[in-house]
Amino acid sequence: MSVERFIDPTTVPRSHAMKAAVIHAPRDLRIEEVEIPAVGPNDVKVRIRAGGICGSDLHYYQHGGFGTVRLQQPMILGHEIAGEVMEVGSAVTRVRPGDRVAVNPSQPCGHCRFCLEGKPNHCLEMRFYGSAMRMPHVQGGFREVLVCGEAQALPVPTGLALELAAFAEPLSVCLHAARQAGPLLGKRVLVTGTGPIGALAILVARQAGAREIVATDITDTPLALARKIGADIALNTASDTDALAPFKADKGYFDTVFEASGSAAALTGALDVTRPTGTIVQLGLGGGPMTLPVNLLVAKEINLRGTFRFHEEFAWAVDFLAAGTIDVSPLLTEVVPLAEAVRGFELAGDRSRAMKVVLAL
Amino acid sequence: MSVERFIDPTTVPRSHAMKAAVIHAPRDLRIEEVEIPAVGPNDVKVRIRAGGICGSDLHYYQHGGFGTVRLQQPMILGHEIAGEVMEVGSAVTRVRPGDRVAVNPSQPCGHCRFCLEGKPNHCLEMRFYGSAMRMPHVQGGFREVLVCGEAQALPVPTGLALELAAFAEPLSVCLHAARQAGPLLGKRVLVTGTGPIGALAILVARQAGAREIVATDITDTPLALARKIGADIALNTASDTDALAPFKADKGYFDTVFEASGSAAALTGALDVTRPTGTIVQLGLGGGPMTLPVNLLVAKEINLRGTFRFHEEFAWAVDFLAAGTIDVSPLLTEVVPLAEAVRGFELAGDRSRAMKVVLAL
Amino acid sequence: MSVERFIDPTTVPRSHAMKAAVIHAPRDLRIEEVEIPAVGPNDVKVRIRAGGICGSDLHYYQHGGFGTVRLQQPMILGHEIAGEVMEVGSAVTRVRPGDRVAVNPSQPCGHCRFCLEGKPNHCLEMRFYGSAMRMPHVQGGFREVLVCGEAQALPVPTGLALELAAFAEPLSVCLHAARQAGPLLGKRVLVTGTGPIGALAILVARQAGAREIVATDITDTPLALARKIGADIALNTASDTDALAPFKADKGYFDTVFEASGSAAALTGALDVTRPTGTIVQLGLGGGPMTLPVNLLVAKEINLRGTFRFHEEFAWAVDFLAAGTIDVSPLLTEVVPLAEAVRGFELAGDRSRAMKVVLAL
Amino acid sequence: MSVERFIDPTTVPRSHAMKAAVIHAPRDLRIEEVEIPAVGPNDVKVRIRAGGICGSDLHYYQHGGFGTVRLQQPMILGHEIAGEVMEVGSAVTRVRPGDRVAVNPSQPCGHCRFCLEGKPNHCLEMRFYGSAMRMPHVQGGFREVLVCGEAQALPVPTGLALELAAFAEPLSVCLHAARQAGPLLGKRVLVTGTGPIGALAILVARQAGAREIVATDITDTPLALARKIGADIALNTASDTDALAPFKADKGYFDTVFEASGSAAALTGALDVTRPTGTIVQLGLGGGPMTLPVNLLVAKEINLRGTFRFHEEFAWAVDFLAAGTIDVSPLLTEVVPLAEAVRGFELAGDRSRAMKVVLAL
Repeated sequence: MSVERFIDPTTVPRSHAMKAAVIHAPRDLRIEEVEIPAVGPNDVKVRIRAGGICGSDLHYYQHGGFGTVRLQQPMILGHEIAGEVMEVGSAVTRVRPGDRVAVNPSQPCGHCRFCLEGKPNHCLEMRFYGSAMRMPHVQGGFREVLVCGEAQALPVPTGLALELAAFAEPLSVCLHAARQAGPLLGKRVLVTGTGPIGALAILVARQAGAREIVATDITDTPLALARKIGADIALNTASDTDALAPFKADKGYFDTVFEASGSAAALTGALDVTRPTGTIVQLGLGGGPMTLPVNLLVAKEINLRGTFRFHEEFAWAVDFLAAGTIDVSPLLTEVVPLAEAVRGFELAGDRSRAMKVVLAL
Repeated sequence: MSVERFIDPTTVPRSHAMKAAVIHAPRDLRIEEVEIPAVGPNDVKVRIRAGGICGSDLHYYQHGGFGTVRLQQPMILGHEIAGEVMEVGSAVTRVRPGDRVAVNPSQPCGHCRFCLEGKPNHCLEMRFYGSAMRMPHVQGGFREVLVCGEAQALPVPTGLALELAAFAEPLSVCLHAARQAGPLLGKRVLVTGTGPIGALAILVARQAGAREIVATDITDTPLALARKIGADIALNTASDTDALAPFKADKGYFDTVFEASGSAAALTGALDVTRPTGTIVQLGLGGGPMTLPVNLLVAKEINLRGTFRFHEEFAWAVDFLAAGTIDVSPLLTEVVPLAEAVRGFELAGDRSRAMKVVLAL
Repeated sequence: MSVERFIDPTTVPRSHAMKAAVIHAPRDLRIEEVEIPAVGPNDVKVRIRAGGICGSDLHYYQHGGFGTVRLQQPMILGHEIAGEVMEVGSAVTRVRPGDRVAVNPSQPCGHCRFCLEGKPNHCLEMRFYGSAMRMPHVQGGFREVLVCGEAQALPVPTGLALELAAFAEPLSVCLHAARQAGPLLGKRVLVTGTGPIGALAILVARQAGAREIVATDITDTPLALARKIGADIALNTASDTDALAPFKADKGYFDTVFEASGSAAALTGALDVTRPTGTIVQLGLGGGPMTLPVNLLVAKEINLRGTFRFHEEFAWAVDFLAAGTIDVSPLLTEVVPLAEAVRGFELAGDRSRAMKVVLAL
Repeated sequence: MSVERFIDPTTVPRSHAMKAAVIHAPRDLRIEEVEIPAVGPNDVKVRIRAGGICGSDLHYYQHGGFGTVRLQQPMILGHEIAGEVMEVGSAVTRVRPGDRVAVNPSQPCGHCRFCLEGKPNHCLEMRFYGSAMRMPHVQGGFREVLVCGEAQALPVPTGLALELAAFAEPLSVCLHAARQAGPLLGKRVLVTGTGPIGALAILVARQAGAREIVATDITDTPLALARKIGADIALNTASDTDALAPFKADKGYFDTVFEASGSAAALTGALDVTRPTGTIVQLGLGGGPMTLPVNLLVAKEINLRGTFRFHEEFAWAVDFLAAGTIDVSPLLTEVVPLAEAVRGFELAGDRSRAMKVVLAL
C-alpha cells in the first residue's frame, strides 16, 4: 500500500471551481465555491456523488468541534464519501476514469514508527479528511470534486449505489472495533447505543458469527431498526432503567460489548452485565471524563479497550458491501441534495427521525 | 488439582484451643482463643508460623471493610500464611508431617462454570481466607493452627524462611497480573504505586524480562526500595507532578502499566504515557468510582484490564521463591509477634516506615 | 455443566431390547438387538431418530479402525445423533419428555486437570460414543434408544429436522477448528479437502465473516457443492496440479487454511500459499506420519495448529442450526433406513456420490 | 525506524583497501582485499572488530550453501558483527565517531506490504548481510570496514566487550522466537538442540521467567554448558533415547518447546512431551523435508510455529547485553584472528569443542 500526498486545494492553480459544504462556525454551514486541485502523477480525481454525515460532522456543525478539537478556520466537512473517477495521474494503474469508487479519507504518512508497526491509524502525521485536529485543518470530502491518492480510491461494482458505498468508512470503523474485540464467533454480544455506529456494529457482529446480539438505546426509533437488522433483543434503558438486570446473574452474561453511546451510564451498565474476563470495546468518543466503577472492572478482570478509526478494514468494508454480505441499506434515512445541506444536518441530528443522512453532491 | 472442603472451626469438636487475631470492629483487633478444627481424610493441619499483613487486612482493621464489603461478625484476619505440617488426613499423599508449607488461601468450588472454564479465581462459590464478602465470613489464617485441604499446602524448601514463604500469596497476585498483561519480554513497563503489590510487580516485571521499569509513588521511602529491587527509574509524582511528562512524547512511551495505587490520578497519568495499543493492568482495588479521561483510552486504543487474585500462579510463586529467582527479602520490614499484632497493624499502615509486616504466629 | 456417567448397555438389567448398528470387523456391520439401559436420576432416555455417518465410522467399517485405534470387540458405531426424549431422571430439569434433542457424544470426566483448565476435549478420562480408543470400547449412538446425561441432550426447535440436528456434532468440530484459527473476520481462507468436514468448514468460515474462501479437492462432485455453499473459488488440484500457483506470489495469499483432507500433499501445498505469519489448522486426522517442508513453515513463520473435537462449541452448533444462520441441508445426501445401514455405509464411502449420509433409526 | 540503503562495495570509488573473509566455494575461504565504500549522508562507517561465526556461515563454508540457497559468486561472509564508528554521514544524529556499536545486518525495504504491516523480517526486498538468497549476493560483515545505515548501528556501553556485542544478532533471533512462543512466565520449557541458538534460547527462556527449563542434545559438551547457563535438566538423547520418557505422562509436560536442532527426531520427540494446546517454536532451519507424526499435533492441538530472523528484538538484545541481564560470555569459545579464519571455521564446526567462535577483525 503506497500512501499518497494530500493535495491541498488552496495551494494549487485553479483549474475550475466546484461547490463544497464549508463549516465556518456552529450552525454556520455554507455551500461555497472552491478551487479544484491539479492531478499529480499518483493522484485520482473523483467526482464525489455521495457523502454520509457522521457524528463528528454533526459536532462541528452543532458545537464547532468536540473536546479539545475546535474549528479555527473554515473547513470543508465530510469523510464518508464515494464517487466516480474523472481522471487519473500518469502513474496510476489500479483505477481508471469511469470507475466508481469509495474513497478512504485517511492518509497516514507511511514512515513514522506507528506506520512501520502496522498501526497507521496511530500515525504521528495522520491527515484525515474534514478534521480540525491539525492546523491548518485537513479539508474534507463534501465537495463536487476531490483529488486523492491512488491508494485511497477503491473500486465498487456497478450494482452498489454510491450512497451505500459511502458507508464504507463508518463500516470500516466497526470492522476495526470488531478486531479489537477478538473472535466473535459464538459470542454473546451487547451493543449499547444504536446510532449509526452501534447499528453498524450489530451488522458486523452478525457478520462475524455472534451467537446472540442484544442492543440498548434510550430512543425507540433506532431500537426498532436494531431489531430489523439483526439484534435478537433491543431494550430501551431510558424507559426501563432495569432492562439489563436479567443479564447480571452469575457475574454477567455477555462475552463482548460494543459501547457506542459514549455515555458513562451505558458503560457502567455494561460492566455489570459483562462476564468475568469479557471485553468491552469503547467506540463512541465521548466528550469529557467519565466516572466509572473501576472496582467492577478489576473484580471481573474485564478488558476495556478503545478503538480508533481503521486501516486495512476499509478494503474489507468495500468487499463486504460489494458482495452484499453486509447490507447497510436499512440504515439510509434520506439522500439530501447538497443545496439542502443545512436541512440534511438538522435531520441527521434528530435521532427520532434519522439514522444516516447522505448528501448528494 | 482437587479442591478441598473448608473446615469451619466453629462446627467441629474442640480438640484444644489456639490463639488467633480476630477483628471485631475498626481498630478492635483482639488476640483470642479459638477451637482447632478436626482433620478430615483430605485435610492437612498446619502450625502457622508467619502471616503477612495485606492491604485488605488493613482495611478491615482501619475501616471495618472496603467498598460494599463490611464486617458483620468477628473474623480471623489473614491470608498470606506459611507454616509447618503437624498432621495429615488418611488420604493425603503429597505432604507429610514436618513439611514446611505455604498455604493457598483460596478454595474454589471446582464445579461451577468458571471453575470448569479454567478461571477458578471467578468461582461463583469461592471461599477465601479472611474475607467478609460472604456471610458467614470465611475465617482467616492469622492463627496458630489451621486445617486446610491438601491442595492448598505447597511444600517449600528448608532454605526458605517461612516469613518469606508467606509472600507466596501476594506474589501470585502479581504473577497473575503479569499474565493479564501479555508477554513482558522486551517491554517498557511503568508501575504506579510502589506499596507491597507495586513492589512485587516490579520484581515480577523483571522476572518476566521487561526491558525497562519505571516506578512512581507519592512517598519517598517505597520509591527508594523500588530502585533497590530493580526499577530503572523511580519518580515521586507528589513532589514533581510533571515527573512523567518526558514519557508523553509521540503518543506515549510505555508498552505496559501496572497500576497498583488504586488512585484515579495515577491511572489518568498512566493513560497519558502509555503507547497506542498498550495495556494497563489495574491491580489496586480502589474504593469508589474513578473519573477517567476515557477519550484518551479510545484515541490510543489502550487496553485497560482488571486483574483479580490468582489461580495456578500460586504454585509458580512458591517455585520462584524456592529457587530464589525472585527475592522478596528486601520487602520484609519487620516480623512482629502475634501478641503485638496491634502494633504490627499500625506499623503496616505507615507507608513512610513499612513495606510488608509479617506476624510471627 | 455437570457431566453424566455413561450407562453401559451391557451391564444394566434388560428392560426391553432395541436395534443397533454393531461393527464386528471390517465390512461386518450387523443390525443387532441390544439391551436398553436403565435411567438414573440425572439421565435422559432418547429415542434416537437420526445418525450421521462420520469418517471415523467409515474407517471402522472399511478398515476396522485407524492408526493405532483398532476394534477389539463388537461396538455400536455412531456419534452424530439426534432424537426425541422418552423419559428423564428425577433430577433432570432442563429437558423433558417430548423434547427433540441433539446429543453431544462427548463425556469428559469434569475433574481431571484438563477439565479444570477449561479444555475438556483433552480430558484424561474422556468417553466418546462409538470410539475404540479405550477398552472396553465406548458404545455408540446408532441405536434406537440411548440413555445419556442431562448435559448431553440439547433441545432443538420443531422447525429443525432431526437429520439436520445430527449435524451438530461435525459442525461443532469445525466451530472449534475456527476458534483455533483466531478471528476470521476479513480473512482470506483456504479450505483443502471438501468432504463433510471441509464443507462444514466453508460454512463456518462464512459464518465467521471470511472475506474470501477458496476450496480445493481432488474430486469434482464435492467441489460443485463447495461452490454452492459459499466457496468463492473451488479448484480441482488433481486435474490441475498447479491450480493454486496464482496464490504463491509475494510469499502467499491466504491468512488462514483449514486442512481437511489429511493429505501431506494438500498440507505441503497450503504451506506454499499461506502468507507469512498465517495459520494452518489441521483437521483431518491422517493415518501415518507426513513428510513436510518444515523449512517453509519456518521461513514464513507459519502457525500449524491441530484441532481436536470440541467442547462448548456443541451448544453453538445447536444454536446456529436452530436459528438457521448455518444451513447444512445442502450437505445431506440421503437418509437411509437402519435396515439398509450397509448400503448407507457403502454410499457414504463413495465421494463421487455422497457428502453426508444419515441413518434413520 | 528509517531503513538505509545498502552500500555495495563493488560499485563505489575505491578510497583504500581493507581485508575481508570471502567464500568462493566449499572449504575455499580466502582473506582478500576489497574496496571500502564511500559514506553517504545517512551512513555510518564502522571499523568492525568482532564477527561471530553462525551456522549459516558454516553451511556456506562446508557445503557452499543450504537448501536451495547456493553460492553463485564470491561472497564476504558474516552477519554477527560489532565495531567502532570511524565516520558518520552529514545527516546522522544518533551515533558519532568513537561510538562502539553492534551492527544489525538486516536491511528491510521499509515500504513493501510486510514492512508496512510491522513484519519487516518478511520484507519482499530484504537485504541481509552475507546471504546468497539474492543475486547478486548481499556481501557480509567479516571485513575490516563496513558502511551501513544509521539505523543499523546500535551503540553499546564501554563495559561490553565487542566480541560479546557481536552476540546481539543471534540473541535477537532467540528473542524473536520467544515472542512467537507467547508469554514464558511460569512456563515449563524444553529446548531441543543446545548449539549456539539453543543455548541462547535457554538464556532467553530464563530471562522471560520460565519456571523450569529442560535441554536435550546428542553431544555432552554443549549439554554441560546448558546446565551451566540455566537448564534445570540437560539430557543426552543419543546415549539414552528414552531420556524424555518421564515427560510423556498425562499427555505431556512442557508448555513450550524451542526446537533448535533442525532434526525430525527431535521434533517428533517434542510432540510426545508437549502438553495439549502447547506451542513448539521451530528455530533450526533444517535442510530438506521432515517426516512427522502430524496426528499427534492434531490430537493434542499443538501449535507448531516457525520463527524467522527478528526485527525490533535487535534493540532488545543490545539492551539486555548492555545491562548484563543476559550474560552470553559462557558461550564464547575463542576469539580467532582474521588471518586464522579457516582454523576458526574448522573449530566452529566441531560441536565437541566449540560453542561460538568469534573472529577478531
